[in-house]
Amino acid sequence: MKISTGSEYMQSLRELNPVIYYQGERIHDVVRHPATAAHVRAAAMTYSLANDPKYKDLATATSHMTGRAIGRFTHVHQNADDLIKKAKLLRVLGQKTGTCFQRCVGFDGINAVYSVTYDMDQAKGTDYHERLKKWLTYIQDENLMVVGAMTDPKGDRSKGPAQQADPDQYLRVVERRPEGIVIRGAKLHMTGAVNSHEILLMPTTALGEDASDYAVICALPVDSPGVTMVFGRQANDSRRDQCQCLDVGKPSFGTVGGEALIAFEDVLVPWDRVFMDGETEFAGEVVYRFAAHHRANYGACKTGLMDVLIGAVSYLTLVQGTAKGSHVRDKVTEMVHLCETLYSSSLACACEGWPTASGAYMVDTMLANVCKQNVTRFHFEVARLALDLAGGFIATLPGEKDLASPEVGRLVEKYLGGVQGFPAKDRIKLGRLIEAMTGGTALVESMHGAGSPQAQRIMIFRECGLGDKVALAKKLARIPMRKDLGKK
Amino acid sequence: MKISTGSEYMQSLRELNPVIYYQGERIHDVVRHPATAAHVRAAAMTYSLANDPKYKDLATATSHMTGRAIGRFTHVHQNADDLIKKAKLLRVLGQKTGTCFQRCVGFDGINAVYSVTYDMDQAKGTDYHERLKKWLTYIQDENLMVVGAMTDPKGDRSKGPAQQADPDQYLRVVERRPEGIVIRGAKLHMTGAVNSHEILLMPTTALGEDASDYAVICALPVDSPGVTMVFGRQANDSRRDQCQCLDVGKPSFGTVGGEALIAFEDVLVPWDRVFMDGETEFAGEVVYRFAAHHRANYGACKTGLMDVLIGAVSYLTLVQGTAKGSHVRDKVTEMVHLCETLYSSSLACACEGWPTASGAYMVDTMLANVCKQNVTRFHFEVARLALDLAGGFIATLPGEKDLASPEVGRLVEKYLGGVQGFPAKDRIKLGRLIEAMTGGTALVESMHGAGSPQAQRIMIFRECGLGDKVALAKKLARIPMRKDLGKK
Amino acid sequence: MKISTGSEYMQSLRELNPVIYYQGERIHDVVRHPATAAHVRAAAMTYSLANDPKYKDLATATSHMTGRAIGRFTHVHQNADDLIKKAKLLRVLGQKTGTCFQRCVGFDGINAVYSVTYDMDQAKGTDYHERLKKWLTYIQDENLMVVGAMTDPKGDRSKGPAQQADPDQYLRVVERRPEGIVIRGAKLHMTGAVNSHEILLMPTTALGEDASDYAVICALPVDSPGVTMVFGRQANDSRRDQCQCLDVGKPSFGTVGGEALIAFEDVLVPWDRVFMDGETEFAGEVVYRFAAHHRANYGACKTGLMDVLIGAVSYLTLVQGTAKGSHVRDKVTEMVHLCETLYSSSLACACEGWPTASGAYMVDTMLANVCKQNVTRFHFEVARLALDLAGGFIATLPGEKDLASPEVGRLVEKYLGGVQGFPAKDRIKLGRLIEAMTGGTALVESMHGAGSPQAQRIMIFRECGLGDKVALAKKLARIPMRKDLGKK
Amino acid sequence: MKISTGSEYMQSLRELNPVIYYQGERIHDVVRHPATAAHVRAAAMTYSLANDPKYKDLATATSHMTGRAIGRFTHVHQNADDLIKKAKLLRVLGQKTGTCFQRCVGFDGINAVYSVTYDMDQAKGTDYHERLKKWLTYIQDENLMVVGAMTDPKGDRSKGPAQQADPDQYLRVVERRPEGIVIRGAKLHMTGAVNSHEILLMPTTALGEDASDYAVICALPVDSPGVTMVFGRQANDSRRDQCQCLDVGKPSFGTVGGEALIAFEDVLVPWDRVFMDGETEFAGEVVYRFAAHHRANYGACKTGLMDVLIGAVSYLTLVQGTAKGSHVRDKVTEMVHLCETLYSSSLACACEGWPTASGAYMVDTMLANVCKQNVTRFHFEVARLALDLAGGFIATLPGEKDLASPEVGRLVEKYLGGVQGFPAKDRIKLGRLIEAMTGGTALVESMHGAGSPQAQRIMIFRECGLGDKVALAKKLARIPMRKDLGKK
Repeated sequence: MKISTGSEYMQSLRELNPVIYYQGERIHDVVRHPATAAHVRAAAMTYSLANDPKYKDLATATSHMTGRAIGRFTHVHQNADDLIKKAKLLRVLGQKTGTCFQRCVGFDGINAVYSVTYDMDQAKGTDYHERLKKWLTYIQDENLMVVGAMTDPKGDRSKGPAQQADPDQYLRVVERRPEGIVIRGAKLHMTGAVNSHEILLMPTTALGEDASDYAVICALPVDSPGVTMVFGRQANDSRRDQCQCLDVGKPSFGTVGGEALIAFEDVLVPWDRVFMDGETEFAGEVVYRFAAHHRANYGACKTGLMDVLIGAVSYLTLVQGTAKGSHVRDKVTEMVHLCETLYSSSLACACEGWPTASGAYMVDTMLANVCKQNVTRFHFEVARLALDLAGGFIATLPGEKDLASPEVGRLVEKYLGGVQGFPAKDRIKLGRLIEAMTGGTALVESMHGAGSPQAQRIMIFRECGLGDKVALAKKLARIPMRKDLGKK
Repeated sequence: MKISTGSEYMQSLRELNPVIYYQGERIHDVVRHPATAAHVRAAAMTYSLANDPKYKDLATATSHMTGRAIGRFTHVHQNADDLIKKAKLLRVLGQKTGTCFQRCVGFDGINAVYSVTYDMDQAKGTDYHERLKKWLTYIQDENLMVVGAMTDPKGDRSKGPAQQADPDQYLRVVERRPEGIVIRGAKLHMTGAVNSHEILLMPTTALGEDASDYAVICALPVDSPGVTMVFGRQANDSRRDQCQCLDVGKPSFGTVGGEALIAFEDVLVPWDRVFMDGETEFAGEVVYRFAAHHRANYGACKTGLMDVLIGAVSYLTLVQGTAKGSHVRDKVTEMVHLCETLYSSSLACACEGWPTASGAYMVDTMLANVCKQNVTRFHFEVARLALDLAGGFIATLPGEKDLASPEVGRLVEKYLGGVQGFPAKDRIKLGRLIEAMTGGTALVESMHGAGSPQAQRIMIFRECGLGDKVALAKKLARIPMRKDLGKK
Repeated sequence: MKISTGSEYMQSLRELNPVIYYQGERIHDVVRHPATAAHVRAAAMTYSLANDPKYKDLATATSHMTGRAIGRFTHVHQNADDLIKKAKLLRVLGQKTGTCFQRCVGFDGINAVYSVTYDMDQAKGTDYHERLKKWLTYIQDENLMVVGAMTDPKGDRSKGPAQQADPDQYLRVVERRPEGIVIRGAKLHMTGAVNSHEILLMPTTALGEDASDYAVICALPVDSPGVTMVFGRQANDSRRDQCQCLDVGKPSFGTVGGEALIAFEDVLVPWDRVFMDGETEFAGEVVYRFAAHHRANYGACKTGLMDVLIGAVSYLTLVQGTAKGSHVRDKVTEMVHLCETLYSSSLACACEGWPTASGAYMVDTMLANVCKQNVTRFHFEVARLALDLAGGFIATLPGEKDLASPEVGRLVEKYLGGVQGFPAKDRIKLGRLIEAMTGGTALVESMHGAGSPQAQRIMIFRECGLGDKVALAKKLARIPMRKDLGKK
Repeated sequence: MKISTGSEYMQSLRELNPVIYYQGERIHDVVRHPATAAHVRAAAMTYSLANDPKYKDLATATSHMTGRAIGRFTHVHQNADDLIKKAKLLRVLGQKTGTCFQRCVGFDGINAVYSVTYDMDQAKGTDYHERLKKWLTYIQDENLMVVGAMTDPKGDRSKGPAQQADPDQYLRVVERRPEGIVIRGAKLHMTGAVNSHEILLMPTTALGEDASDYAVICALPVDSPGVTMVFGRQANDSRRDQCQCLDVGKPSFGTVGGEALIAFEDVLVPWDRVFMDGETEFAGEVVYRFAAHHRANYGACKTGLMDVLIGAVSYLTLVQGTAKGSHVRDKVTEMVHLCETLYSSSLACACEGWPTASGAYMVDTMLANVCKQNVTRFHFEVARLALDLAGGFIATLPGEKDLASPEVGRLVEKYLGGVQGFPAKDRIKLGRLIEAMTGGTALVESMHGAGSPQAQRIMIFRECGLGDKVALAKKLARIPMRKDLGKK
């Protein structure tokens, strides 16, 4: 691993030169720019943790290709234990950053593409898998951060890629040259894009035969010519931009992952970095496998965040003198219950992992969808309970400038302290932490990251084996097995 | 009504001189200051609506004291129909502002204090009720905005007012002079305080005999000497402070009501504006009546907000091409269902209204608590469903400066438009509106305004008539009525 | 009112001779047969209550046709106050019987048919309304119990009435003779049918022009030739059939309303009892109005049942020594909260009542659908909470024969008593009462009576005024009103 | 395994002679008595399954004591894989019986007592563990069914065992003789007791030092002198008692497990079958470990039941012509989602299993409590959704005697068939199956079996490591680690 510490990671970013805009202006140094610095630090934790003996076993792995020690975020899962370790690693990172640390997207992309390129080569006689392995060895050896880029703008969602008025609403190959393919389009909501080294592009949906130009998987450096990023706004980002410390809630690591629109304006990608080009029949499978891995993750990393939130609220009730109320304990219990229910889903789909033909391990896809579906419900409910216990001051807190003010600082200090002797400043910090972790962007990310709720429901229905369940019921009810109605 | 239009209201505010701080700096003109201007406009709508013939019957009333036409927000409810009209008025105002219009707090304070001063005078031979009527006639004739101020800082909540280490954690009388009382303390989370004319102070809890200095009700102008306000921060207030138009979501009326900490540093209040001084046994009743009215309101005004949110999301699904999905219709249905369930509670507690001894009408207190309890659940659920349908772009939207940027504006325009021909700008506006209405502060206000969830549960248990229900069950089960166990 | 007491009602039933089967055998006397006796007593309470001065105002009304005093269950609502009184009456009856008292179906049928026949006559020049008034005067003067019969078997639900393989799956006119119409078909789930005097038949759905034989409304005595009823099974009906007293849970009034399949095998109905014959375009409106009234009722009668259940469980916790547990109080609070939320819906749709052209008052149809939708959720939740607090013994209770047994009675007595001195018999009674009120049939009735959940959702979506909400949102977001997308 | 088939199991029961009463009469042959026959068949499936090559690996194990092949239900878990296999076995058995197969209670009792006797011997120098191993070898070799008996009557639950007015409300040792101990008391709700071979008695709660006579673990044959059982009533048991086939819903295997009150009237237990006598400090640990195993199971066996229910309802929608409705698919999806969420918890607590000092493996206790907590919610919700889709006919179905009746059979046949050509009889069977699986007893068992909901909440709060979570939050909020408030 060439990059083996957080500092090295940050240094490596400064050697790149991606085109990033934020609020209409170019960001030249993502490591120091106030809009992105905290996000970078959260991602850096994925490197730092590997140096903590307590977590080394979770944070690193042995490459099945080279036998060399690698960062787990570049690993291809070799067994169910790898999947379980991943879940545990994500929870720890969630606990330590309280936010998204952004490396899962590339991680899951690598794993999905690994097994599907194998299947493609078997079926079609292509050599995508070898190309992928070569690129992946480079990623592992350098320990690079990869953004897995899937979500297209989609334009009119009642129409497919090839039916859009503007054909660029889904990313596509516009030209094939001897040296490589030329791509055009965009990917939205790209977590960690601005502080990654590489982009791994994948299609966003199953594709029909008419959409072969949209069936493209390839990898390219973030600073390839023609790539432009627009970093999105987040809740209360202005506090961060103004380098406010107290009001920002979680000064070290920021609130949410940091997403960008990545536009590709006729970008050339060399052939040895192209891992699919036109094999429409495999597009759905890449989405399916990527989504399953990614949905499983949310039941792990978000529980790390919930641990922090539960701790914050629980401490706040001590500060406010309400900790012993029976309803307080009951609500804390409920938050823990929901958090652990989620974590159970994440563990379960790892524990039921299965090998693909390539040897790479997949989570149980049904349970992964169940896991993510619960995230879209429970994170809101946990936030609601946290805000219930925190009290109304979350919404009316004066700012750090008021606390520092010679005119009104004494009033803020006097009236926002809670139990005797507790500094108002610390109570405010807790309030701001809770505000940051329950506000808009954080919850939206839980809702839509790794696929919107309805996407999971479709998969759950599709994979539930309804015919088998019908047969069980018929047998118990002593209904003859007929052909006419039993099929669905 | 001296002040009879929104403009006159805004003008009247500029004739006052309250001490208001925000972010460490003094606000001199709440009508124009970017932090408060939108809030003022929302409150102004309560005046403007009375001039719309369509709503005049809801927005005005006839004073039972003077027979003169008055704004409904200064009216003492004379019958159940008044209560129903209030509910309808609040829903309309919620629909037209999409936010808190702030005048209910004073409205409910007036009604609570009106009936309790009557009871006090009957019981104790005092003349509080007459003083109150005199002050109220002034309020009605001028059509002033009153902030009903109840919530104290409370310090250590496991202790009562008289047991606090710092006795000022609950507002109290520190001196009684021939010309009036001198008060010290603070009120937190005061909605509309910075743009009100008058403050109506009330105790925050039932009080024991040892807390007679805390049993105080009185009224004073917002710019009385010794009164200082600190205006609280809200989610994404910086966008507002920077006069951003697109990103602020709801440019005309702002997001939430606008709350302030009001500190009282030895403020003199003349006797004819003192409506309780030491009658601890009546403190609980004021809180009870104020809370019931206020909780009933939330089932009306918040449904107005939900109407807006449902409309916004529904339109967005058209823009995105998803409106015909069965799950989309089902989620819209669910939002409507929750919204109307809430509204039903608000109507029901009005329809079951009852006269106090003073003649002022109270809502059904049980149903009012039920109403608010549902607000604390349903607003989150409606927000969750809205964010589900809106999609992930709520969390990753570029800003208005990106849209205007010569470098990346074309990319934002191209890739954020939705169905063909729809301007990205309008889709972004919808996204920002939804963001503003589902983000942190808005929901926290629904949770804790008018009392936190547990406060309602205590009232529901207390008022449910459990003994009667036990008797019904015993009779049907043919269990003899014994004395030993039947009592609770 | 010819029939003015419960006894007179029961006597009047014995003068009829309907064909009723149960468990394969004919029931000759519904008043005494163990399968139906308790149901009859519940219906009788609707007559008895009118003689209790405390409830006379609720239980009776003045006929708008004759000016004579009538039972409210035969009244046509003249104003919103009538609708509110109906809701209060239903809650009281639910409290006193703990079950369905069955008379609402006919009550709502009368009110729906009253206003729609008026509209039909206005539109088509028919004289259905006068016929109806004549029949209704008879019903009022005699104070008869009417079963409103709507639900057809429906066969294959993916097809309409005229598309069924068996045309009798929806009730229809098979012949028109000089003396009247001849009808064939069946109505399922007819609550109170076996102990009613008259049947009021209505179509079950909106009808197309091809279904004119299915557009029929008429009234006939329950013992008309060709009418056969099959009384359905209910949970634990065998205990009732065996005249067990303790195990049956609610000995006086039974568990659920008592439903029957009514088959019509070429039954002649005279023309003066025919209130619709072929006017397909009005069929949907009858269903709509009937359904709205009926759905509103469920928020009233079921809250009466919940009052009993809350009382039973609450008393049981005293008997078991758990009443002071904070989680016990919290769950009782939640049951009350859900119960009162329901009741609020029922009151609200009455309070928002509006006059039809005929003068008969309708409830607010949106809120009535909201009300019933909540019933389908909350009754299960209240039952779940009740069973939580009651404890596992509900599922494992020995029977009354065990308690009476010389061999094991002492063991049951010793080990099922709860707190010292409380007789095991009474604890068992409570257990059985709770069992009866939370078991299968009771909840299914709440789910599907007055229409299944999805039926309400369709109405809620249809009536929610989505276009208006979209306009509110556009205005606040400052989006121009375009034509292209704004319409839905 | 001496008993290796279902038939042998049934034969073995007839060689015992337990004293069992039901409805006041003695049951002499549990295998044939209509009240118990179906329960016995469900338990017999635990034996039969071992002979199916498909399930042999799940249904059998190798004894760690003897190395001999044994039934898994007598096995001591040796690793996490054993725990996972147990979960899978339980789901399969739930699918094949649609009900409780009763053997988990003894299974979990054996595992709990195994590890705790080891700890006791280590701490106190006793030889309980050796005694237990000897007895267990006998159980394994014979392959006996053991009922784990824990729940005492408890009398007044606000008091402990030693404070009860009647000291027998908790089972206790009343005498110690040279040949053994003499016990008195009772155990309630004993699943499978009437068709087990042996009883394994355990204390029901943590005990104080004053309760040493209540700290008793021992094993005895079900037909020991002084043991009397009273078999409890279940929903619709009369249908079963009358040998009705159609109406009983699930003719082969019955509805719920079959519970009994077991009274012990001064029963002698020899010393070599006594595994705890007075070691109060270990009582809580037995309960804790037993409860954890048992709670984990519910997430497996109940999902098997849910599979059946989902299948039944899904098939019914085909029969009724509603299967393609979007809301139908959505509700099926939701049922599956809840079912798989539960299963995830059960897998997760197995996958996180850990070895006790004895070598026996425990599930993760936190996750096991989370699992059972979800059962108490989801089973009701799944039942509610099933009843929603099934339709109102569940509550009004005529009986099998009506279907067979010469007078009305044709009407039932004609009007209850659904889509053309489908026999009404089969639709009725489906209805009755659904009725049986969603009715009272079935859900109460899910609620209270393995501990009532509040018991799980207490454990979740206790085990959630709140202090660690507080520390995470403090670190992220940059609040210094103080001593005063940080501890809870």
